[in-house]
Amino acid sequence: MENAISNLITTYHELNASVIDQLDEEPSPLTFFRYVAKNRPFVVRQAATEWKAYNEWNAGYLRKKMEGESVKVAVTPLGNADAVVKQQDGSLVFVEPYETTEDFSSFLDYVQSSSTKGAGDTKNVKYAQTQNDNLHDEYANFLPDIPKDIPWARIALESHADAVNLWLGNDRSITSLHKDNYENIYVQIRGQKHFTLLPPCEMPCVNETFLPRGRYAPTAHPGRNEEEEGRLQVALENEASEKVPVAIWDPDVADQNTTRYSYLANPLRVTLEEGDMLYLPAMWYHKVSQTAGEEGFVCALNYWYDMDFSGHFWSGNNFVRDVVGEEGGQGSMGSSVGMSGKGAGEAREEK
Amino acid sequence: MENAISNLITTYHELNASVIDQLDEEPSPLTFFRYVAKNRPFVVRQAATEWKAYNEWNAGYLRKKMEGESVKVAVTPLGNADAVVKQQDGSLVFVEPYETTEDFSSFLDYVQSSSTKGAGDTKNVKYAQTQNDNLHDEYANFLPDIPKDIPWARIALESHADAVNLWLGNDRSITSLHKDNYENIYVQIRGQKHFTLLPPCEMPCVNETFLPRGRYAPTAHPGRNEEEEGRLQVALENEASEKVPVAIWDPDVADQNTTRYSYLANPLRVTLEEGDMLYLPAMWYHKVSQTAGEEGFVCALNYWYDMDFSGHFWSGNNFVRDVVGEEGGQGSMGSSVGMSGKGAGEAREEK
Repeated sequence: MENAISNLITTYHELNASVIDQLDEEPSPLTFFRYVAKNRPFVVRQAATEWKAYNEWNAGYLRKKMEGESVKVAVTPLGNADAVVKQQDGSLVFVEPYETTEDFSSFLDYVQSSSTKGAGDTKNVKYAQTQNDNLHDEYANFLPDIPKDIPWARIALESHADAVNLWLGNDRSITSLHKDNYENIYVQIRGQKHFTLLPPCEMPCVNETFLPRGRYAPTAHPGRNEEEEGRLQVALENEASEKVPVAIWDPDVADQNTTRYSYLANPLRVTLEEGDMLYLPAMWYHKVSQTAGEEGFVCALNYWYDMDFSGHFWSGNNFVRDVVGEEGGQGSMGSSVGMSGKGAGEAREEK
Repeated sequence: MENAISNLITTYHELNASVIDQLDEEPSPLTFFRYVAKNRPFVVRQAATEWKAYNEWNAGYLRKKMEGESVKVAVTPLGNADAVVKQQDGSLVFVEPYETTEDFSSFLDYVQSSSTKGAGDTKNVKYAQTQNDNLHDEYANFLPDIPKDIPWARIALESHADAVNLWLGNDRSITSLHKDNYENIYVQIRGQKHFTLLPPCEMPCVNETFLPRGRYAPTAHPGRNEEEEGRLQVALENEASEKVPVAIWDPDVADQNTTRYSYLANPLRVTLEEGDMLYLPAMWYHKVSQTAGEEGFVCALNYWYDMDFSGHFWSGNNFVRDVVGEEGGQGSMGSSVGMSGKGAGEAREEK
């Protein structure tokens, strides 16, 4: 099947641009839908410059709006939430962050003061990255500052946003390569985000491997405050828990954890500046790093819309997975099997 | 790969309706584009009842408009233009019709008088089925009677129709299962058309087999008029000519020429009545039979729009072909290989 898989990726590249389309202005619903249909990303530069969020949000304003409020914070030693961690025995684990609840203002202080750490700094990295429609929950105070929907997306997709999320952190956090089963409109407010994007057909390149789950947890030190202690270690879930498929190839470390197809990948890269908007199509792999704005933090919003599982797109992507899985042993880990038989019902769980 | 291929087809069916959508009225460009994006057909009943063609076209009107004009006619013994014919030695050939040029009025006489032949009737079948934008060529006299474009298709697809064709024949002609690399809007004017439709992912079911080409030709009888003679026989192209991939499974004779996947096919069936419109999406397999209208002929129009080869649709369908081809030997003919490596450049030739 090696030829078929290679042909899939090279034919896709022959027929599609190797850069991201840049639109001069927000698209009409029909123009937007053309991108959805093709499952191709685009950027609209300076699309959000009239938003109150863009015009008002600075550290002082955010603190004032959130006075007395607590928020959930992801804490990691290296800015690596939801990421692959190599254990001392060489095995890989998919590790989720330690989660705390903190006073917003203290959290923002921490983010601002810990931006761009130097070598040897062991201070943990904090990132507000709850992806549970947090703007209708813990950040509801900010709702008046943003559109409740992206009009052209709502009209084209015939639905309201399923979730609107705020992301707040600094340049020490990196979101590792993954995909979501959602149409995603991403809006940069403060700082920059650097996206590396791979289309769904490059699934054979990313070395999806079933890994055990773990979670960062503070090392126990009776009598000491966890926060002061700060040393986080990976706690594995029990062995009976289901393993999760994780892309272990990193396009920025392209010679490690490769499959025989990784060299065919053609990652698209784009940096969002303050006020820019990105359409990140459903099921595109994306890795995201960031650069802090002038006040030492990065803030972005995203609107998730349900993707359409009908038509040929979902079943076609499943087919690629199945073929790669049945081909077997593609990955350097030797455990990279496809998610055969994963039906539509399960599809919505992955986010 | 058998599981992967079976999963592709069954997952598609799980996620898509088993009947054709029926719209109450012509869609907006955005609604139409939703169907294009999903690559799903729909019917709009009575969409063309205001067209002059629908209201005026009867045998007398057609004759008058075409007075003195000649047209190209496909002649076959059994109504089987562009179809698979079994030779005496059991081998299959893809046979194109004998082509003549006839006075339009005489042709229409023949069509009307030969409708619904009885057993034992050996009279040839004639069908005006040139698919070369014939309404801007030999049938240009009818152009004022039809819209030059389908507005919602033109707006959604951002292009004018690449070809507008008239089809004129009777119930003795059958168009065998095939696909076109075009978005197709089909409009019934007189009589009925009975469509059997299969989505592109059912490619593994249809047993695409490379067959030699042939063409019907009159048996030579010096001194006799070909037309009087009428006996057509298959003339093979020379052996060096390229074989063509042909779907040899017929959903109406489902137990013959099967592949191991044919039983998974779920053909959609729809009959177009006079005034009805069908969106037949690009790359859907379709077989078409017809029933004559009250004057003994069938007349339809179709608008072909260029399909979009970018995005994931074309490359994804190619991938299915390649996997089926690499799996090999799926067909009862043992020669059913995929069209591996068929690039975008070649794609447009198939119509």
